[in-house]
Amino acid sequence: MNHQQTPQVIAGLKLGSTCAGIRQSDRDDLVVIEMAPGTTTAVVLTRNAFQAAPVIMTREHLTETPRYLVINSGNANAGTGEQGLINARLICERVAQHTSRSANQVLPFSTGVIGEQLPVESILQAIPQAIDNLSENGWSKAAKAIMTTDTRPKTASTSFRINEKQFQVTGICKGSGMIHPNMATMLAFIATDATVTQQALQTCLDRVIPDTFNSITVDGDTSTNDACVLMATGQTGNPAFQPESRDFQILVNAVKTVCASLAEQIVKDGEGATKFIRIQVDNAYDRAEAELVGKTIAGSPLVKTAFFASDPNWGRILAAIGRAPVNNLDVNLISLWINDVNILSNGNPSPDYREQDGQLAMSAAEIVVRVALGRGNASATILTCDLSYDYVKINAEYRS
Amino acid sequence: MNHQQTPQVIAGLKLGSTCAGIRQSDRDDLVVIEMAPGTTTAVVLTRNAFQAAPVIMTREHLTETPRYLVINSGNANAGTGEQGLINARLICERVAQHTSRSANQVLPFSTGVIGEQLPVESILQAIPQAIDNLSENGWSKAAKAIMTTDTRPKTASTSFRINEKQFQVTGICKGSGMIHPNMATMLAFIATDATVTQQALQTCLDRVIPDTFNSITVDGDTSTNDACVLMATGQTGNPAFQPESRDFQILVNAVKTVCASLAEQIVKDGEGATKFIRIQVDNAYDRAEAELVGKTIAGSPLVKTAFFASDPNWGRILAAIGRAPVNNLDVNLISLWINDVNILSNGNPSPDYREQDGQLAMSAAEIVVRVALGRGNASATILTCDLSYDYVKINAEYRS
Repeated sequence: MNHQQTPQVIAGLKLGSTCAGIRQSDRDDLVVIEMAPGTTTAVVLTRNAFQAAPVIMTREHLTETPRYLVINSGNANAGTGEQGLINARLICERVAQHTSRSANQVLPFSTGVIGEQLPVESILQAIPQAIDNLSENGWSKAAKAIMTTDTRPKTASTSFRINEKQFQVTGICKGSGMIHPNMATMLAFIATDATVTQQALQTCLDRVIPDTFNSITVDGDTSTNDACVLMATGQTGNPAFQPESRDFQILVNAVKTVCASLAEQIVKDGEGATKFIRIQVDNAYDRAEAELVGKTIAGSPLVKTAFFASDPNWGRILAAIGRAPVNNLDVNLISLWINDVNILSNGNPSPDYREQDGQLAMSAAEIVVRVALGRGNASATILTCDLSYDYVKINAEYRS
Repeated sequence: MNHQQTPQVIAGLKLGSTCAGIRQSDRDDLVVIEMAPGTTTAVVLTRNAFQAAPVIMTREHLTETPRYLVINSGNANAGTGEQGLINARLICERVAQHTSRSANQVLPFSTGVIGEQLPVESILQAIPQAIDNLSENGWSKAAKAIMTTDTRPKTASTSFRINEKQFQVTGICKGSGMIHPNMATMLAFIATDATVTQQALQTCLDRVIPDTFNSITVDGDTSTNDACVLMATGQTGNPAFQPESRDFQILVNAVKTVCASLAEQIVKDGEGATKFIRIQVDNAYDRAEAELVGKTIAGSPLVKTAFFASDPNWGRILAAIGRAPVNNLDVNLISLWINDVNILSNGNPSPDYREQDGQLAMSAAEIVVRVALGRGNASATILTCDLSYDYVKINAEYRS
């Protein structure tokens, strides 16, 4: 399915951004999103045992039909105890007050430094301005306002036709901490103008996430604030998509296209990243073990520094495969390729392998590592990036 | 128990080092260790599914009573297939030939780059010289010869008395890749002059490892070559220690003292390390979950870069605790200290906490992070180091 990074308008969805001066006085850091009446919403939240105040509040508020999202960058409102919950509530109340809604119809999201209280007064003061700025054309500005260590905004759009009707899907996200695929908060907001029941929308989101955002984030290994929201405004006036229908599958594919693009943009903007690496694990017994092997390779700092150095030190990849938590791995069935260069065949070094071929493959800006486990027919693809000096620099200096 | 880093002689054990020119022509990289007749040997080997050729061969040879160890640095002989096994065997045979033993009484060990064949001819030629150099005073030279990215040799000794008899324990080790606690190969060779049955010696080693070398290495998450050997020469002529006797416990404590010192030296020599961090997890339900929480914190690159930056960004510690694979963690029971500074009490930020106190604690060269989980009485202590620019530099340039 074709997609583009320029965000296309979604009828029924408005975004307003402004500067609340949370960490910097010269950039937008506060976003309000308004959903037209009739919009359905699906949400996936972090599984981290420490859940930030806005995550706890969003979970509570999901008992009502959401009409607004309020998002701030610069401060995660995590590890902030009772005061954090009070602040999150105050923010929802301020949005509700200015839009004649109840606070329970507002979902709050935060990203940034953990362990500091929000500058809540500044945020409360800025909320009316964000609401004044609400516009269907607000996607690009919002994508910028939610950034933390991101070096560029992340947006994606696609469209599809069913029975002469055109449907649109647009999304934005932030996130760039990628040495471990699970460290920095990821926030993603995706919308479509299709009519979708809440239940079907949640099914759609649950189905899309494993192959997209969770292929760069270890299940259950998320940050305190991770959240992904999918909204369906219903402005196209179609009959609601029925789960498991052919039309529903088309919707799922479109949402997956947008989320896959956003996930890839996160990896490519990995902190200090100079290379994009696709780790494809084939012939696994099941998808779970394919993911485990892929994520063990992707999580290895030694593998990542070798990519940075364009060093075909494939022994590090092999060591990572060997310590993946998979039972009874038979190394004599394992084969390994870097791009088209065969390194290992059935556990033995490929006789045709030449160091210069490996070096050439490792020098590319985009690298595919393919591992065949020889155990079954399942596959998984994990996206990651290299580990550079700049990763250390960015993360050592993040708060200063 | 007192210990010193200067290695003391162990009667009945001789070490000979020489230069085989494996990667460099100006340093020793080959060691032969000779055990007097009657010496018993206990071994713990890597659990990585990819096992290096010398590991496979050592496992095979353990059916006989070992009389020699042969160790090379500079090349791990891992990921080298059939040829790697042939080379390991040739090396054992050469040692056997020059000492009138059988090749099965020689245990081979290798550490260094993975995925390249050993320069076996150079090693075979150098073996007679290593044997000529055998000396009870060879510990320090051997500790240097087994180094790879280590910046200093690692040695430790201690002694104990039972019934007027003095017993000695001495060990050397190498290893310094510490961003993940499981990445670089660790080799350790420890010896005592006590008389210990093989079975009791293995029990001793198995009991010592969890609190020492495995507190810097994730179980089952070891490299392709990790090995720890404990030898008892029996030269003091004592009646053999009986397992579970009081005397046996004294031996275990002495071996633990030496291994703990060696493990600490590895962490302090972590690649690019500027700080030494002791992560103490208390009030866990069992030791396993205490270790999991400790290792999740120790394995977080974000936590490690914060230590490097002396940044009391304790939110990163909190996020790591929250994603540790422990079921039903109740964050409202968790407390956190950095040195004596209380950060979190029962899930809430400590009211007395001041950023400057956190900063001061994080500035020290040695830092204790203490986490109380509020779930039980089990504890574990994990040792780690920070993540600096130099880690990336060392590992990006390792092969060049």
